[in-house]
Amino acid sequence: MYKQKLPSALLEDAVAQIGMLPGIGNRSALRMALYLLRQPVENVRHLSDAIIRLRENVRYCSVCGMISENDICSICSDSRRNASLVCVVESLRDVLSIEATGQYNGVYHVLGGVISPIDGIGPSDLSISSLVERVGKGGVSEVVLALSTGVEGETTSYYIYRQLQSTGVKVTAIARGVGFGDELEYTDEVTLGRSIADRREFRP
Amino acid sequence: MYKQKLPSALLEDAVAQIGMLPGIGNRSALRMALYLLRQPVENVRHLSDAIIRLRENVRYCSVCGMISENDICSICSDSRRNASLVCVVESLRDVLSIEATGQYNGVYHVLGGVISPIDGIGPSDLSISSLVERVGKGGVSEVVLALSTGVEGETTSYYIYRQLQSTGVKVTAIARGVGFGDELEYTDEVTLGRSIADRREFRP
Repeated sequence: MYKQKLPSALLEDAVAQIGMLPGIGNRSALRMALYLLRQPVENVRHLSDAIIRLRENVRYCSVCGMISENDICSICSDSRRNASLVCVVESLRDVLSIEATGQYNGVYHVLGGVISPIDGIGPSDLSISSLVERVGKGGVSEVVLALSTGVEGETTSYYIYRQLQSTGVKVTAIARGVGFGDELEYTDEVTLGRSIADRREFRP
Repeated sequence: MYKQKLPSALLEDAVAQIGMLPGIGNRSALRMALYLLRQPVENVRHLSDAIIRLRENVRYCSVCGMISENDICSICSDSRRNASLVCVVESLRDVLSIEATGQYNGVYHVLGGVISPIDGIGPSDLSISSLVERVGKGGVSEVVLALSTGVEGETTSYYIYRQLQSTGVKVTAIARGVGFGDELEYTDEVTLGRSIADRREFRP
């Protein structure tokens, strides 16, 4: 790691703090701190304020758990969306990715992560019971699981599936397969195997 | 550019502000904002404070112009350093780079940039007159120019050289040549040409 003695404790503290951000090493942190020094003080104050206001004043949708300005988020409160179709995702980023496709008209349920005994994350740390409750209240006809593949995601999907069984709701999962434009030759065998097992009728 | 409609104005503002930092695109800015949301509020407050305190409370050495905690920086006030040898650099980053070599025992003079008519930076925007004044006061035997190569750096070096002529101080420039471990084959012709012209006696 690139680490230098800096001539000012203020600068050292700023570099150390900026360096805690994901993907920012010491070198970039120093570059950013020096950049901030050259900016008008109002701009730096705006950045500083935006960061702390985000953390202190953020709210979460009481229905789906997504970041929201109001008690109920813009997606849950949109009457044009199909509230009987609930897609379960790990995080807001997944919501944004699915929204960016423009292919989904249902609503979401943000878990806040996946079950991970190694990281000490159990079912009670995630919004699973609120999902079961939400489905139990009725009005939901299908739950689409869109969690990551891998042991933790699969475990979480299975756990949710078991929890939802008593409600009788239809539980589906997003399709896994060879991506558009991907070469079969370079696709890993698990994905390719799954795409053969999950083959569907050809509709030209 | 990757740009998404975000479900919260607070988040949108934070992402926009973080995205102003050098080398941070919208995607990384979003990743950082979501990371901050998951951190304890004290950590986020510490980051926010460190940034604004740096900008508001930073001081500059009254002798060399480097960032400093006190009126005179740690290098200028170090009696073990040779105060008669002054190395002229563009920025604090160059000071840090030279300090990291452990090969320099003199002091510095931080210009704050180079003369650049395109960016509207003239000699009066840089700490050139304070350098001439500093040398004029006596006690300086050699000024080492360590500015970047290229038209702007060369122009600035020449301008400083001319300004210092009346003081009679010895003006030198750092050596340019083929880097250690570099292949001649892949060295640009200007550097290679300079390294031949500036050849020195071989001392095994």
